[in-house]
Amino acid sequence: MLYSPAMPDAATHIFPIETLRDFSTRVFVHCGLTEEDARLAADVLASSDLRGIESHGIARLWAYVKLIEETGVNLRPRISIVRETESTATVDGDHGLGLVVGPKANQIAIDKAAAAGTGWVAVRGSSHYGIAGYYPLMALKHEMIGWSMTNCSPSVAPLWGSERRLGTNPIAIAFPAGKQRPIVIDMSTSVASGGKVEIARRNGENLPDGWLIDAEGRPTDSSEELFRGGCLLPLGADYAHGGHKGYCLAAMVDLLSGVLSGAQWGPFVPAFIVSNMAGASPRGAGTGHFFGAMRIDAFSDVVQFKERVDAWILNMRDTRPQPGTDGPIIPGDPEYQAEVERANNGVPISPPVLESLRTVALQTGVAFDGA
Amino acid sequence: MLYSPAMPDAATHIFPIETLRDFSTRVFVHCGLTEEDARLAADVLASSDLRGIESHGIARLWAYVKLIEETGVNLRPRISIVRETESTATVDGDHGLGLVVGPKANQIAIDKAAAAGTGWVAVRGSSHYGIAGYYPLMALKHEMIGWSMTNCSPSVAPLWGSERRLGTNPIAIAFPAGKQRPIVIDMSTSVASGGKVEIARRNGENLPDGWLIDAEGRPTDSSEELFRGGCLLPLGADYAHGGHKGYCLAAMVDLLSGVLSGAQWGPFVPAFIVSNMAGASPRGAGTGHFFGAMRIDAFSDVVQFKERVDAWILNMRDTRPQPGTDGPIIPGDPEYQAEVERANNGVPISPPVLESLRTVALQTGVAFDGA
Repeated sequence: MLYSPAMPDAATHIFPIETLRDFSTRVFVHCGLTEEDARLAADVLASSDLRGIESHGIARLWAYVKLIEETGVNLRPRISIVRETESTATVDGDHGLGLVVGPKANQIAIDKAAAAGTGWVAVRGSSHYGIAGYYPLMALKHEMIGWSMTNCSPSVAPLWGSERRLGTNPIAIAFPAGKQRPIVIDMSTSVASGGKVEIARRNGENLPDGWLIDAEGRPTDSSEELFRGGCLLPLGADYAHGGHKGYCLAAMVDLLSGVLSGAQWGPFVPAFIVSNMAGASPRGAGTGHFFGAMRIDAFSDVVQFKERVDAWILNMRDTRPQPGTDGPIIPGDPEYQAEVERANNGVPISPPVLESLRTVALQTGVAFDGA
Repeated sequence: MLYSPAMPDAATHIFPIETLRDFSTRVFVHCGLTEEDARLAADVLASSDLRGIESHGIARLWAYVKLIEETGVNLRPRISIVRETESTATVDGDHGLGLVVGPKANQIAIDKAAAAGTGWVAVRGSSHYGIAGYYPLMALKHEMIGWSMTNCSPSVAPLWGSERRLGTNPIAIAFPAGKQRPIVIDMSTSVASGGKVEIARRNGENLPDGWLIDAEGRPTDSSEELFRGGCLLPLGADYAHGGHKGYCLAAMVDLLSGVLSGAQWGPFVPAFIVSNMAGASPRGAGTGHFFGAMRIDAFSDVVQFKERVDAWILNMRDTRPQPGTDGPIIPGDPEYQAEVERANNGVPISPPVLESLRTVALQTGVAFDGA
């Protein structure tokens, strides 16, 4: 949770965020998105890189290009409200890119909240929408509490199961503060993400207990097992440590994002780069999201609320530290630290990611500064 | 999570739920609640006993009596909406009993949802509201998804802290199903509850790792440490196992229930039997709750939604079991099993709880059948 900027080695290049954002935008335009949609999609990726969540940033540009080129993502989706009330909407993303469908659907939640106090939008017919935490940040700009959830392709076993039936299904929620920085929660509902297991594998390290089971459902500390049919475990891992609670949270996200919207759910959620164009399958359509926005002034005087959030933050920071730690931090601290560092000094891009950007540049003919 | 009805030993008495409900109602009326409010409060306790969550049922009747008699709970609270929009309200419980304020505020969320698609109610000036799962069950009766959260008196350390600054802050949410039973999630956001630590202590058992730290912040397997200033740990326990996520969830519940409503928050949430009558303290008023209700038909055709929930349930049940288990269950299964068993055969009341009921009967002069 503490953000430690990786010491760039000789081979790591540093790029200004605007260079990365501009490249992504031009690549998306080249792929056929409108200029406006390309900017939206590039902004989600740039936000991820700025906030230090490199796994979900421009490192995945190649994958989005592949998603567009090989699976027939709808480049000009007619994103539509299929059902609505004053405070709700169900949005059909028309099989557009999640990086475009997500921000537009979230904007509908914000608009609903402006009118009715809160807005809640369930989305189907979408694809991978980037970092969950991007969306509540949009709500923060409007003096709102923002919520975001998405289901993901299956990698997690329900408690007491030994098959992948749920995704890492993240929950994000952000609260505006006054003089302090906003509180920004963005967490998967599994013990660890697949990305963390991959890092351990790359480093040849054993996994902590409780992260993974093998294909037979037995606990394992070998990262290899994830690539041999094993499953990530829900937050809490086993019953003694609250694994039923992580399973409940993953279920909640899937039910709100997938089942409520009419998207695919559970084991049927499409993998990142797999066609979700099958149309109205009996299992629902595409990936599903769930967004919420709550106007602060629908509940409280805004200034007083922010003063209370400030006091809350200072109180948590003031907690006596556990031995060997610097004490509690506030959700969103690591991402904020990354953002300050990277906005000023640029974003480190590791050699394999740089290589992937060069490949995208070659494939698309879109020039990459520094490539 | 699997419900195993305790084999009643010779000393355990079994009572029909109506006997318990009736006794609680008459005790609350004796204490000064209106007949209607007494029925509401007794229903929350009875629901808890029926659903097998004995810790939160009639076992606590003595504590509510003490709360009323010693701390000046407002017996005739003027529960009022202090701010509202189409889809929101902030409710001041006027220092009433949580078992009365909770159901009434939750009803406001349901009424708002009936009109605007969803309803969201932040509550201040309340006290302990019983089981979180009671409230979403109210929403289920209206073809709604129900949400409920509450902050609680401090017993949990934020990750990397060694002081109690958060409660076990539960989250409950329930989804209607079609032919299957509804999905009912009701979970604290700590690894384990204080009640579970107490049971281990009573049985002279060591605790699993990751449940508790001592007053110095060191991990401990001794249940005694909870009574010597130790802290429960947030779900996930430590950073390697996702303890930052449990901390985030506890924070979310506290911010929505306490900070948004203007109730007390974090370390200032009143203990169960402690005066919350201090009035407008700078830290806010009383215990806080957060309720939500979402009309299914605000998002989806109701019949189709329920079919999808049914399919989701069957799919999770169908997951290949982990060795040594019977496979995944569905959130709410254990409580449902308890409810069927106890509605038919009565509620087992352990000797210490029976003793407490006899004491209440003596103190109040309200006859307890079988006492």
